[in-house]
Amino acid sequence: MAPGELAVGIDIGGTNSVFGFVDRKGKILASGSIRTASFPRFENFVSVLYKEIIKTGNKSCKGLKIRGFGIGAPMGNINKGTIEHSAGLPWKGIVPLSDVFHRHTDLPVIVTNDANAAAVGEMIYGGAKGMKNFVVITLGTGLGSGFVADGRLLYGHTGFAGELGHTSLKPESSDRECGCGKKGCLETYVSATGLKRTLVKILADSMKPSRLRKYSFEELDSKIIYEAARKGDPLALLAFEKTGRILGYKLADVVAHTNPEAIFLFGGLARAGEMLFRPVRESMEENMLSIYRGKVKILGSKLNLQNAAVLGASSLVWSTC
Amino acid sequence: MAPGELAVGIDIGGTNSVFGFVDRKGKILASGSIRTASFPRFENFVSVLYKEIIKTGNKSCKGLKIRGFGIGAPMGNINKGTIEHSAGLPWKGIVPLSDVFHRHTDLPVIVTNDANAAAVGEMIYGGAKGMKNFVVITLGTGLGSGFVADGRLLYGHTGFAGELGHTSLKPESSDRECGCGKKGCLETYVSATGLKRTLVKILADSMKPSRLRKYSFEELDSKIIYEAARKGDPLALLAFEKTGRILGYKLADVVAHTNPEAIFLFGGLARAGEMLFRPVRESMEENMLSIYRGKVKILGSKLNLQNAAVLGASSLVWSTC
Repeated sequence: MAPGELAVGIDIGGTNSVFGFVDRKGKILASGSIRTASFPRFENFVSVLYKEIIKTGNKSCKGLKIRGFGIGAPMGNINKGTIEHSAGLPWKGIVPLSDVFHRHTDLPVIVTNDANAAAVGEMIYGGAKGMKNFVVITLGTGLGSGFVADGRLLYGHTGFAGELGHTSLKPESSDRECGCGKKGCLETYVSATGLKRTLVKILADSMKPSRLRKYSFEELDSKIIYEAARKGDPLALLAFEKTGRILGYKLADVVAHTNPEAIFLFGGLARAGEMLFRPVRESMEENMLSIYRGKVKILGSKLNLQNAAVLGASSLVWSTC
Repeated sequence: MAPGELAVGIDIGGTNSVFGFVDRKGKILASGSIRTASFPRFENFVSVLYKEIIKTGNKSCKGLKIRGFGIGAPMGNINKGTIEHSAGLPWKGIVPLSDVFHRHTDLPVIVTNDANAAAVGEMIYGGAKGMKNFVVITLGTGLGSGFVADGRLLYGHTGFAGELGHTSLKPESSDRECGCGKKGCLETYVSATGLKRTLVKILADSMKPSRLRKYSFEELDSKIIYEAARKGDPLALLAFEKTGRILGYKLADVVAHTNPEAIFLFGGLARAGEMLFRPVRESMEENMLSIYRGKVKILGSKLNLQNAAVLGASSLVWSTC
């Protein structure tokens, strides 16, 4: 890399799209955003976004050279540079993101999904520096995941490898409906919403008192449950325990399939720390073949939650170009 | 590759170890074997095996050049060139296979487990030619598996990626004991022995007549069950149905994790064909996210069952050296 080179990281979200100029060490020199939701036409969105990026760059990063654009988006497909059937964005069907972006620039444009971007971000700037085989799991409203094998993102035949949130937990016995149309998907249990659904079922099954019984389903969220658990509420603690054990069980399969050095947990729910990490670790170890036991670390992400999406997206440029 | 070059493929098994001189097209020009079980000392085993290989080569492959040695062995670890804690071989602990082999030759020696070797064999000589992302599953007494991602075997951090047989099916509700010490491992359901265990439980649950009720547990084997199923025995058919559905359910996770183009089924049980393949396919499709549906082929191996182990082992030489 020449000195003074920057990568532009772009995180396309349902409400806002955020961008940043990032150096090789992960320092964000300038940033900005536009409202995704204001652009029903995709071509318009890209035009305005590109202009905004150049304007910000001219103002704050004079004399520095852009090396390329890394874009993280839900259902982003690196093989084709497209966004495919994303439920949360204004544009339906298959959106040719990379092609439209290239109307404005000849520089490299790399598209991938947000969780894959987070995985590369962890490798370039975070706790996975120097690791060749690891997994990053983002725990937010849903469960996203990116797998790195032998130093490279695992994409598979059609670009959709590294999916964990929609693997099934109990196909024949779970009534828990998922947004994808299936039942019993892992993210219906392991995510901020999954934790809440589990807690509400515990409230129904248990006869123990709990400060959480006064909240409606709508009012409850993972923060309220976390605070209650921290204060020792046994049902809130049980909800974290169950959530962690379910994740650990499925991670045992991830370990058997891809044999990573570490699994990073990232996102709001991961802030619960050992309350979640301990049952994850215990259940994973119980369900693994002995050759893997004690050899796979469960770690918190070292990326700053607030900047991680832009950092992860920008890291695609350093890892690919 | 220079014309006239050969790879030596070696398959180390608990009873016999078989070797063959194989050309780039998968033709076996000469072969031989020694009794693994006769060699309590590992160094002796390698000495005798190597001499036998050279003797066979001098006799049948004059003027041809050996390019390298590919060795498939249970618990073979490519990272270290070792066999680690294999239950079925005479040598305990960690066996430095590659190092000891190199006392006899300076040519490349590549060690991996037998299922990984089968996967590379399928890529070099079989039905996976030209595929970059696929999975091979060997269904024998147990269930072995090898994953190929982006044209290369998936090894992971400690060399044990691509494991499927010891992923858990129902950790809290299965009583089915596995040789590994866990309960509910996939291979306790999906293998020749798994099929038999399932059939025997069906005999106990069902009140339907079946020609299989006259066999003891010891007498029953997958061939008897296969023959009964072919003749329309409803309980034998149900055993295949259940076995296939369980495999399909776990394959949905493999697809989500690694997004392969095809999954090859190989080994004795795979000869049952559609009796097994149909429920595998149906259950896999039901449990997959829509983005994968209809896009992953379930195929029979194109390797000859009898030669496959040696072919697979030899293929490591062409794919690596």
